[in-house]
Amino acid sequence: MLDFDTFFMREALKLANIAFDEDEVPVGAVVVCGDKIIGKGYNQVEKLNDPTAHAELLAITAACNFLGSKYLDKCTLYVTLEPCMMCTGALRESQIKKVVFAAADTSNRSAAPNLFEVKNGILANEAAALLTSFFKKKRKKI
Amino acid sequence: MLDFDTFFMREALKLANIAFDEDEVPVGAVVVCGDKIIGKGYNQVEKLNDPTAHAELLAITAACNFLGSKYLDKCTLYVTLEPCMMCTGALRESQIKKVVFAAADTSNRSAAPNLFEVKNGILANEAAALLTSFFKKKRKKI
Repeated sequence: MLDFDTFFMREALKLANIAFDEDEVPVGAVVVCGDKIIGKGYNQVEKLNDPTAHAELLAITAACNFLGSKYLDKCTLYVTLEPCMMCTGALRESQIKKVVFAAADTSNRSAAPNLFEVKNGILANEAAALLTSFFKKKRKKI
Repeated sequence: MLDFDTFFMREALKLANIAFDEDEVPVGAVVVCGDKIIGKGYNQVEKLNDPTAHAELLAITAACNFLGSKYLDKCTLYVTLEPCMMCTGALRESQIKKVVFAAADTSNRSAAPNLFEVKNGILANEAAALLTSFFKKKRKKI
């Protein structure tokens, strides 16, 4: 049986796979409130030509829209890659309670500890493998 | 005659005034490419119930939409308040060339130097006065 965190990270990973299929850097995110997903997002930077269209931002916007609130202080965000500075800032603005991420991103550390509770490493290998596979595919194309 | 920076900051300040009139924290932003405004935004967090709807993010999205590009590497963003961490991250993602802001925000330092060229203090007093006036109005309502 899947534990709670693995179950929701699996959902985020499904979204990352959609991004992969659409030739986007494969990152997916879900916002969970209680035991329900109330917002989803996957990276759409290329499709929308919008550098702000990261999985986390889209999931935050969707969740706030669902709740009719600008705060997510009772929610957890699951994301397949460690959030960048923009997304970390957005999570802070949303007053999110907790962030769970899979793969670490040592190249893009947001350096923002203590803004919210953080847990990492859930399905990290699968999320990282998807990213590696994406960039391998990209390099082949060039 | 207005200099270039003051002219565009005045445009950003007009947008901040619209935010003020709509009972939003009064911040406005424009993205300038060459001598043209190609994206505008003002804070709409309350109206949209969306913590990501800061002036800068909306202006970046609008400018990228106009250019059909995810990068703003030939553009300058004018904003009436020093960008927060989210917006600084978004500006980095957009590869913006230069950022000009009016009022400083010592409470919300993004601590992200050297990501792009930065100039500050243009119309700082007017932008700060608008913010002060907004929060004074808010406190009276409570």
